[in-house]
Amino acid sequence: LSSGKVEHVVPHMINPNFRFVEADVLESEPLAVALAGVELVYHLAANPDVKFAPETPDRDFRQNLMATQILLEAMRRGGVTKLAFSSTSAVYGISAVQPISETQPCEPISLYGATKLGCEGLISAYSNLFGIQARVFRFANVVGAKVRKTGKTVVSDFIAKLRATPRRLEILGDGRQSKSYFSVGDCVAAMLHVMDRDSTQFSVYNLGGDDWLSVRRIAEMVVEEMGLSGVEFAFTGTEAGWPGDIPRFRLDVSALSVLGWKTQQTSEQAVRMAIRLLLASERI
Amino acid sequence: LSSGKVEHVVPHMINPNFRFVEADVLESEPLAVALAGVELVYHLAANPDVKFAPETPDRDFRQNLMATQILLEAMRRGGVTKLAFSSTSAVYGISAVQPISETQPCEPISLYGATKLGCEGLISAYSNLFGIQARVFRFANVVGAKVRKTGKTVVSDFIAKLRATPRRLEILGDGRQSKSYFSVGDCVAAMLHVMDRDSTQFSVYNLGGDDWLSVRRIAEMVVEEMGLSGVEFAFTGTEAGWPGDIPRFRLDVSALSVLGWKTQQTSEQAVRMAIRLLLASERI
Repeated sequence: LSSGKVEHVVPHMINPNFRFVEADVLESEPLAVALAGVELVYHLAANPDVKFAPETPDRDFRQNLMATQILLEAMRRGGVTKLAFSSTSAVYGISAVQPISETQPCEPISLYGATKLGCEGLISAYSNLFGIQARVFRFANVVGAKVRKTGKTVVSDFIAKLRATPRRLEILGDGRQSKSYFSVGDCVAAMLHVMDRDSTQFSVYNLGGDDWLSVRRIAEMVVEEMGLSGVEFAFTGTEAGWPGDIPRFRLDVSALSVLGWKTQQTSEQAVRMAIRLLLASERI
Repeated sequence: LSSGKVEHVVPHMINPNFRFVEADVLESEPLAVALAGVELVYHLAANPDVKFAPETPDRDFRQNLMATQILLEAMRRGGVTKLAFSSTSAVYGISAVQPISETQPCEPISLYGATKLGCEGLISAYSNLFGIQARVFRFANVVGAKVRKTGKTVVSDFIAKLRATPRRLEILGDGRQSKSYFSVGDCVAAMLHVMDRDSTQFSVYNLGGDDWLSVRRIAEMVVEEMGLSGVEFAFTGTEAGWPGDIPRFRLDVSALSVLGWKTQQTSEQAVRMAIRLLLASERI
C-alpha cells in the first residue's frame, strides 16, 4: 500500500478464497505467518516507480531487493517451493538488438531495473540451492484501469495534464520513444498460463506482445478519447523521457508462444482500453 | 578483515602512497570520509566464500549487495566518478556454451554469484544515471600465496588435508570439475591494463586465461609438490563439489585480448605457483 490503494483490494474481500494480510514486506515475522501452508507465491510487491528519487535513494534497494531477499529466506525456512516473480523488461537497459530475447545481456540503466535484475539473480540461486521452482516474468509496460498512489504512468499523466491545460500537452522526451504495452488482464492471464505449463526448475519469460507504440501516438489517442482538438504537443526534447527511461524497446516473446500463449490485445488496443477505462472511472 | 588478515596489509604501511583505513563497509560515514578527494575506487570488498552458510543466510546480501549499494551512494554524494569492480565468473551459473563470453545469459546458482550479479546491475544503473565510469571484472578463480581467514580455496584445502592424513585425500565432487584459474598477480595487472585503456562509460570483462584445469590434476600437483606418493584419492562423488559450485567453466577472454592483454600464466602454472608459495610460507 505504499504505492497501491486499499480500495483496489476491497472488492475481493467477499471472496472466501481471498485473504488480505496488511504487513510490511520488509518484516519477516508476518511474512512467515502468512506463508504457512502456502504452495505458490506470486511476488508482485515492489517500488513501481522507475524514476530515481533523490530523497529516498535506497527505495529500490529496500523495496525490490531487500524485500525479495526477505521473502526468499521466509520461503526457504517455511519450505515453500514455488515462486512467480514480476520482473521487468527494464533489466535489459538499452539493447542494440530489437526485439529483445530473454538471453540478451542485461545492463540496466535505472535502479528499478538494476534491483529487479538483482532479485532475478537471488531467485536463480535460491532455486538451485533450495529447490524453489521459479518463473521470472519480465513485463512489458502494463496498463490498466487503475491509477497508483505514487508513480504516474504515461496515460494517467497525459489525462491529468490535459485536464489542467486542454490546449497544450507537455510530452517528456521527443515523442519518438516506442515501447511495448499490454493490459493487466493479459499480464495476469499470461502468468497463469505459464505457471500451468512450465514445471522446469527455473525459467525466464518476456511477458507482453511483440509490437510497440510511440509516445506521440499515445498522446494522440488520449486527445481523441477526451474529445479534444487543436492540442499543441510540447516535447521536452530529449531522446529518453527522464534519466533511466528506455526510449525504445520491443520484446521477443517466442518463449511464451512456444507454450501456446498469444497476448490478446496489441499495444495500441491495450493503451486505448486503459485510456477509456481511466476516463470512465473519473466520471463515476 | 572479516575474511582477510591485517598482516597481509602491514607490508604496505611504509609506502607513503598507501593509507589503510579500518572501517566497516556497511557504514556510510567513514566511507564518505575515506572517499574525499578520491578519483577512482577499486571495490574488492566482499564475502569471498561461495558456499552457503545457514547460520548467516544474509551474509552475501549484506557484504556484497548492501556494501556495494552503500559505496555507490557514497560515490554519488561525494562526486567520485570512476569505479573498478571485482565481480565473478560465478554470475553465469552453469552455462551450456563454453567458453563463456560476457554476453552470455546470467543464471547464478550461488548467493555469492547472485549478489555479485545484483552489484553489477546497481553499478550499470549508477553509471548511467550519475555518470560513474565503471568497469566490471568477472574473475576466474584467483590463486595466490595467501590464505584467507575464512573460506578455504582448493589448494589450501588439499594442503591442510594432506598434512593431516598424508595417505588419503578427500576430494569434493568427482574430480572432473574443470575451472579456469589465474594468479593474483595476473589479476591485478589485467585490471590496471584495462583501467588505462578503456574509457567507455560502462563495460564488462571476463578476467583470466582461456584454459581450464581439473580438480584431479590440482590434487596430483599438490601431492607432487609435497613430495608424497601412493596417496589414495577419495571422491565424494557428485558432479559439483558442493551446492552452488559450478563444476565446469572456461572463459572467453577475447574482449581482454582486444585491449592487448594476455594472461601470463596458464591455469596449471598459476596453481602450481600457488602451491609452491603456500608450502614455502608454511616453512617460514
